[in-house]
Amino acid sequence: MSQMQKQIKLAKRPVGTPVMEDFAFIDAPIETPSDGEVLIRTIYVSVDPYLRGRMQDTKSYIPPFQLNEVITSGIIGQVVESKSEHFSKGDIVLGTLGWQEYSVANERTIRKLDPKLAPVTANLGIIGMTGLTAYFGLLDIGQPKEGETVVVSGAAGAVGSAVGQIAKIKGARVVGIAGTEEKCEYLLNELGFDAAINYKKEDVSSALEKACPNGIDIYFDNVGGSISDAVFPLLNKFARIPVCGAISAYNSVEMDMGPRVQTALIKTSALMKGFTLGDYSSRLQEGNTALAAWLNEGKLKYEETITEGFDHIIDAFLDLFTGANIGKSLVKVADII
Amino acid sequence: MSQMQKQIKLAKRPVGTPVMEDFAFIDAPIETPSDGEVLIRTIYVSVDPYLRGRMQDTKSYIPPFQLNEVITSGIIGQVVESKSEHFSKGDIVLGTLGWQEYSVANERTIRKLDPKLAPVTANLGIIGMTGLTAYFGLLDIGQPKEGETVVVSGAAGAVGSAVGQIAKIKGARVVGIAGTEEKCEYLLNELGFDAAINYKKEDVSSALEKACPNGIDIYFDNVGGSISDAVFPLLNKFARIPVCGAISAYNSVEMDMGPRVQTALIKTSALMKGFTLGDYSSRLQEGNTALAAWLNEGKLKYEETITEGFDHIIDAFLDLFTGANIGKSLVKVADII
Repeated sequence: MSQMQKQIKLAKRPVGTPVMEDFAFIDAPIETPSDGEVLIRTIYVSVDPYLRGRMQDTKSYIPPFQLNEVITSGIIGQVVESKSEHFSKGDIVLGTLGWQEYSVANERTIRKLDPKLAPVTANLGIIGMTGLTAYFGLLDIGQPKEGETVVVSGAAGAVGSAVGQIAKIKGARVVGIAGTEEKCEYLLNELGFDAAINYKKEDVSSALEKACPNGIDIYFDNVGGSISDAVFPLLNKFARIPVCGAISAYNSVEMDMGPRVQTALIKTSALMKGFTLGDYSSRLQEGNTALAAWLNEGKLKYEETITEGFDHIIDAFLDLFTGANIGKSLVKVADII
Repeated sequence: MSQMQKQIKLAKRPVGTPVMEDFAFIDAPIETPSDGEVLIRTIYVSVDPYLRGRMQDTKSYIPPFQLNEVITSGIIGQVVESKSEHFSKGDIVLGTLGWQEYSVANERTIRKLDPKLAPVTANLGIIGMTGLTAYFGLLDIGQPKEGETVVVSGAAGAVGSAVGQIAKIKGARVVGIAGTEEKCEYLLNELGFDAAINYKKEDVSSALEKACPNGIDIYFDNVGGSISDAVFPLLNKFARIPVCGAISAYNSVEMDMGPRVQTALIKTSALMKGFTLGDYSSRLQEGNTALAAWLNEGKLKYEETITEGFDHIIDAFLDLFTGANIGKSLVKVADII
């Protein structure tokens, strides 16, 4: 008889902000790997705002989660049994795997990590999904030039903090928008941002005007909503807006209404472009190499908010929408052996 | 004593829809050209929606008109006196000149037209400002590919009708949105559009869904407002939206509110870019040559709504906001001699 493990499935499609009852913790047998597969013990689970979108049954860039199926996200795990010649027991691997204690994965869907190159968790963050998202959105769509003003919202999050630092590397002036004094201090004192705005305490429009005396050349949008509305009147000619996230709208039941952007775009010939990391799937190696180099040169810093225990994965996910986390949110499920 | 002429000045900044009282008809002396200048009798005056924006005292891509200064727009005139070696009496010229019966212009600010190449008025429309606006917005930002679906709003206007025809030349399927049955008939029967939607009679969302069974790859936006809102749910992956005009908002006193676009852009990795013809000032010759070739090959058709008489320039301008015109709106002020 096979050993049992815990899994997390989507029990209901959330309406508004997700709640614990939308998820089900299930006991299920651990699968056995076939040829070309490995059995992986889950070590770190990445929890990310974009997963909220997959819980909705709407057409999007990736198909929605199905009800009563195991939720998946970026996972770091350790091989406990290998039927692949490419992986050995003990290897640390990265893949998109289920929220469960053990996964069976085909050898072609996972990648071996070298813990000597960077801390393994960096592969879920600064040199992984969130860092790469920042890298391609900022450099490919934003195209920062020396001396330009870059504004980033969700600035203390995993993507935002990488965006600001890459913009600094490229010689831009960087203004971050975040939601606590602690986050603003972090942006200014740890990451070297030029200015930080606490949107919960300050009027964003006037604070932006003060922080951006030369207008805004790039707005990296992680949040949407009224924070983003405040940016449009300050755009410079030929401004660029990589649209990465709209966390303010993810849990909205109402239609997300605000000032229309057309007139502001025409007045400035500005560009606004949505993107996801999948758009750059052919260039991931380039981004990973660049980010790892900056990390090892000490030019990139990162923070992690690590929750402990499989039973707290949902807590960590729900915390994303309260603004509790700084940097990348992870859940540590087991120790590396 | 110098001869007198009529001029039109901006008397007040319009609030909401412009009215006759916002303008002043003045008698003023005809100027005398100095060396390198010519005296031009105004023949055709171009009236365009974008001029509404210049009547507002806000930062934009071109400075606003000053109160009590003569309004300017694209003008075709005839040289009546030349102190330039590049122009002779009788030459037909094009320039951005004042709404007055006679203008003095520096030789470097005007261009000679050859009436044998194309009807002179085409230089204000299909091979001039509006045709070029369509050309660069559609081809540079929209980048239509064969078989793609292109939706254009304001489709029977000077820019929109050119957009649709160029999209057809590029092998796209073209859906136009306009505001009368007459305009829709014109799009279908004269210009070869594949479908036409009368936004005043049909529910735009469901009509678009029906007319675009394969979704929307390019939306050329001339109008903004609720018509454009209806497009976003139908965008395909990597859709492109050249944002050319927002006539629905030009006369709005209230804040122009609608559904925020961020989530739709992220889901589709869509691009939205404002532009004006000025962004392409270094490429006008390329566009003009291409448009003139298509015109002479019979691949481009155009309509003009020509109002007669200097005293009716403001009437023709105000008509732009009632949807009265098909194609390019011009005012004929005098005959070519």
